[in-house]
Amino acid sequence: MSNIELVKSAKENSAQRLVETPLLSNMRVNQIIGRNLFIKPECLQVTGSFKFRGAWSALSHMEKEEKRFNGVVAYSSGNHAQGIAAAAMIQKIPAVIVMPKDAPRMKIENTLSYGADVIFYDRMTEVREDIGERIAKEKNLKLIRPYDDPLVIAGQGTCGLEIASQAKKLGIKEAEVLVCCGGGGLSAGIAIALEEYAPSFSVRTCEPTFFDDTARSLRSGKREINDLSKKSICDAILTPSPGELTFPILMKLAGQGLVASDEEVLCAMKFLYENFKLVAEPGGAIALAAALFSNESLKKDNIIVIVSGGNVDSNMFIKALNKESFSK
Amino acid sequence: MSNIELVKSAKENSAQRLVETPLLSNMRVNQIIGRNLFIKPECLQVTGSFKFRGAWSALSHMEKEEKRFNGVVAYSSGNHAQGIAAAAMIQKIPAVIVMPKDAPRMKIENTLSYGADVIFYDRMTEVREDIGERIAKEKNLKLIRPYDDPLVIAGQGTCGLEIASQAKKLGIKEAEVLVCCGGGGLSAGIAIALEEYAPSFSVRTCEPTFFDDTARSLRSGKREINDLSKKSICDAILTPSPGELTFPILMKLAGQGLVASDEEVLCAMKFLYENFKLVAEPGGAIALAAALFSNESLKKDNIIVIVSGGNVDSNMFIKALNKESFSK
Repeated sequence: MSNIELVKSAKENSAQRLVETPLLSNMRVNQIIGRNLFIKPECLQVTGSFKFRGAWSALSHMEKEEKRFNGVVAYSSGNHAQGIAAAAMIQKIPAVIVMPKDAPRMKIENTLSYGADVIFYDRMTEVREDIGERIAKEKNLKLIRPYDDPLVIAGQGTCGLEIASQAKKLGIKEAEVLVCCGGGGLSAGIAIALEEYAPSFSVRTCEPTFFDDTARSLRSGKREINDLSKKSICDAILTPSPGELTFPILMKLAGQGLVASDEEVLCAMKFLYENFKLVAEPGGAIALAAALFSNESLKKDNIIVIVSGGNVDSNMFIKALNKESFSK
Repeated sequence: MSNIELVKSAKENSAQRLVETPLLSNMRVNQIIGRNLFIKPECLQVTGSFKFRGAWSALSHMEKEEKRFNGVVAYSSGNHAQGIAAAAMIQKIPAVIVMPKDAPRMKIENTLSYGADVIFYDRMTEVREDIGERIAKEKNLKLIRPYDDPLVIAGQGTCGLEIASQAKKLGIKEAEVLVCCGGGGLSAGIAIALEEYAPSFSVRTCEPTFFDDTARSLRSGKREINDLSKKSICDAILTPSPGELTFPILMKLAGQGLVASDEEVLCAMKFLYENFKLVAEPGGAIALAAALFSNESLKKDNIIVIVSGGNVDSNMFIKALNKESFSK
């Protein structure tokens, strides 16, 4: 199947399972920023992030065609973990999840609560891909990679299908769609859907300072890598480099990448609290941070921002609430 | 027009203006509480509370049939204020809003930002109804009461229409619908809609300790009053007694009233943060507080909880985040 056929198939397989997250706007906000801002709150998705879309896509396919495995294994800083664990629980598939031991507490607790078997590793000294592959082999589990998997990318693409259909109802003809970017699964999936159903919309990837591998790769045309000794509060999107499958899609379909700092992300989290009554985690607020602070890099009047997740420990959220409110 | 005809008319007049807020659920939560909980997040509504529904209903009607007025006046602790101010701004109608000077800062700032003329009063020494009526007369403004107005009740009823239609799609045949209750506009409006479209659903009003006038009135059959010298953090729903128009509707259609304490409300706010990624104000979380802490008073397997608003200053929200998480 082609990429877009996979997205359509993911949509069919997930009917009734996904939240069709609304497209929210706020007229006061639009006055302040001088554009029409639309928020797609994937923090309201099942498991609190868009990752359930891709997880459901991969596991529902497995249920049909890959009964030879004993279950699934995934590595994840926490949102793919919860998505896989929840989808596996519903489909009664055993799941092993490899998580960094410094993942946010909420992400670890939720993953455990879905009944997954969680194995911790040290991000500084161990390579999660190696651990995942070893466990997959030893236990005959199917490894569900967080972004370099056509079924996962297709599942994230269902978010793009919703955007195209919701924007059409609102009469939006042109827009830039700002998407957080770790390995690029969500941005690539959305780009595939929009190419077919809203070709005048362009995807812009958004990354944290020091983890701007996609922005640099889109400029150089090859997959650049990050210095993983650097730090960012955006735990969900700290990947070493763009994905092998996702990058060619983004290279073809995405505009120039955007970057935002941790301070800007905290401000965006407070902005979402004040104006949209949403809880966003740092990685989930980066696209809004880019929209607020890279205004001059945006080209269209309509800006659609994905708030990709809301799994944030309260100490971090309080840190955001204690920041000054955004002003222009 | 009958009550239900007014609701249907309010729905027609508000097409494209309202957010159809989703019905959210969380499988881990359902395991914990042993029922199917559905959250209707009206904090995502325009202006951050359901009040925009009633405000739009009243003002869109006025635009058509009451051109003799110079504008509108409303009294409100803050959510009706924002709803009226925003609807008036869109419809280019001048608005005067009478607010208590101790209203949450966010509510005052937002009301001002919609261009309304705000007049402050002292809740301890002045009667807001008198001020509203005096201004209405002096300036030839139409007074839009927060709940004792058939058009306002009808607008709030559009929330009930959505619940009936969304529940049907989810295959929910019976449910208790828990609704915060100040003057009773939202609960009466929803009850009218459900009587017609989901007659096996029952509305349960939810009020703060010391402000349980509706619960007592539903028992005694007459409009009981509150001791307004008492305090509660639920600023949005601290009314003196059930409404003149709303109470007969609730008496006919609602079940027994539920009550929750401020401590339970704070816990419910944290629960919404953790499990639904939503920002609720205290009054907006009271129906969930009742669901969590009055479990033995509930009769149905399906509980639909309205989260009525999210306009809360960050110091109050941080207070909620610092509470212990709910456990059963």
